[in-house]
Amino acid sequence: MSGAQQGRLYGVGTGPGDPELLTLKAVRAIGEADVLAFFAKAGRAGNGRKIVEGLVKPGVVELPLYYPVTTEIDKDHDDYKRQITDFYDASAAAVAAHLAAGRTVAILSEGDPMFYGSYMHLHVRLADRFPTEVVPGITAMSGCWSLSGLPIVQGDDVLSVLPGTMVEDELSRRLEDTQAAVIMKVGRNLPKIRRALSAAGRLAEAIYVERGTMAESKSLRLSEKLDDAAPYFSLVLVPGWSGRP
Amino acid sequence: MSGAQQGRLYGVGTGPGDPELLTLKAVRAIGEADVLAFFAKAGRAGNGRKIVEGLVKPGVVELPLYYPVTTEIDKDHDDYKRQITDFYDASAAAVAAHLAAGRTVAILSEGDPMFYGSYMHLHVRLADRFPTEVVPGITAMSGCWSLSGLPIVQGDDVLSVLPGTMVEDELSRRLEDTQAAVIMKVGRNLPKIRRALSAAGRLAEAIYVERGTMAESKSLRLSEKLDDAAPYFSLVLVPGWSGRP
Ligand SMILES: C[S@@+](CC[C@H](N)C(=O)[O-])C[C@H]1O[C@@H](n2cnc3c(N)ncnc32)[C@H](O)[C@@H]1O
Ligand SMILES: C[S@@+](CC[C@H](N)C(=O)[O-])C[C@H]1O[C@@H](n2cnc3c(N)ncnc32)[C@H](O)[C@@H]1O
Repeated sequence: MSGAQQGRLYGVGTGPGDPELLTLKAVRAIGEADVLAFFAKAGRAGNGRKIVEGLVKPGVVELPLYYPVTTEIDKDHDDYKRQITDFYDASAAAVAAHLAAGRTVAILSEGDPMFYGSYMHLHVRLADRFPTEVVPGITAMSGCWSLSGLPIVQGDDVLSVLPGTMVEDELSRRLEDTQAAVIMKVGRNLPKIRRALSAAGRLAEAIYVERGTMAESKSLRLSEKLDDAAPYFSLVLVPGWSGRP
Repeated sequence: MSGAQQGRLYGVGTGPGDPELLTLKAVRAIGEADVLAFFAKAGRAGNGRKIVEGLVKPGVVELPLYYPVTTEIDKDHDDYKRQITDFYDASAAAVAAHLAAGRTVAILSEGDPMFYGSYMHLHVRLADRFPTEVVPGITAMSGCWSLSGLPIVQGDDVLSVLPGTMVEDELSRRLEDTQAAVIMKVGRNLPKIRRALSAAGRLAEAIYVERGTMAESKSLRLSEKLDDAAPYFSLVLVPGWSGRP
């Protein structure tokens, strides 16, 4: 890099949707950035980018990282894995070019960057090579249980964070073996999630939250949700603290 | 309440220690508050209160809620339970008096209020009676894995949040049955936690974080920590994402 001063990389958590849930540190990092990078579906704005809309200063370089269109390919197929790996390699290279040229880059990440975030794929490719700082964000689950006014864990409770993609038996086994649970990645998995909760005897307590802290958020008992339509931005909360007053 | 307009209750997450990790919403809630309430040990400042030091406006009423001194009594003993219940009842009554008189009260809570926070005890006593809003906070675990630059969960990983107070066999069983784990409440439990991690074959990966995001933070491999002294503000991270590049 021939002596040029390297730029700084920030992995910036944008929180679950409400722009007021950014931290002061996230606001500062975005303000310092010469380049604002974010993941997005082709032709879409990118959710992390939408959350920080009010903070983007004129003149900043925007670097959208568009996911390859892979809807036709099975996720476990080698072609899919190769395309995705190539995409993260190319994205990391694009960010690295800015960093090597001395520009500060903020990569936006919905919620918390290190918690199921795409940012992690760039972090593992770049953090050893450039000065890097991860700015934690409010997770979707924190945003959702706060919005719902739902105490989630107290005292010696265990909290299990479970992807709704898991097979049904495994999901119900884990729901039986925990005080509290958060089920992420609901979407099309909702009917299966209901069955697993029911098998574990936890359906009555479960709270469904959609678009938590965003403009059109919803929070209701899952047992009172009559349809099975759930958007990408939805999760299910099963509270612990059984002895609560 | 004779028609007087009720005040608003905010449960405000202060994040894990770094004042820059407050959200914009937390800053606003603290700015709106007529009364700032916080838990503290008798004669101590209270950690949540310390974090917001720079934000406290002149003239605000401070309402410290001092835990009763219970160190001599066993936690499972009825005397302990009664003292603690009385304390939360009295604290809720003190907050309620301000709310009934029309004053806005912010109750500070380290990390996220609904995640093992004392605030929850007041929330369940007050949220039905007064307009209440919970402002989520950066959890200690998010602060610690961000500080450590440690991706914690990806894809279909399960994350288990486990209190270090758990019996050893149960802890190792759960560590064997999860991709990622966070062990809270380390302190005196550290030797037991090491044994449980070792039994589960996860000791080599474990990261120990002390005072994460505070002034004197430390983050190191647990296997490289030579003593067993751990302060109250410490936790252990076991990362998932086994297939990471
Ligand atoms: C790839 S994960 C990203 C998680 C994020 N990094 C975090 O810290 O919470 C995406 C999943 O998070 C959940 N999610 C994200 N934002 C949400 C919101 N505002 N409301 C409800 N669920 C949300 C959904 O379950 C979604 O499938
Ligand atoms: C009663 S719980 C409170 C958790 C908090 N409400 C949160 O959202 O993370 C206290 C435990 O949190 C962990 N903790 C809190 N702050 C921490 C910090 N700055 N660094 C490491 N661990 C911390 C410790 O394990 C401690 O025993």
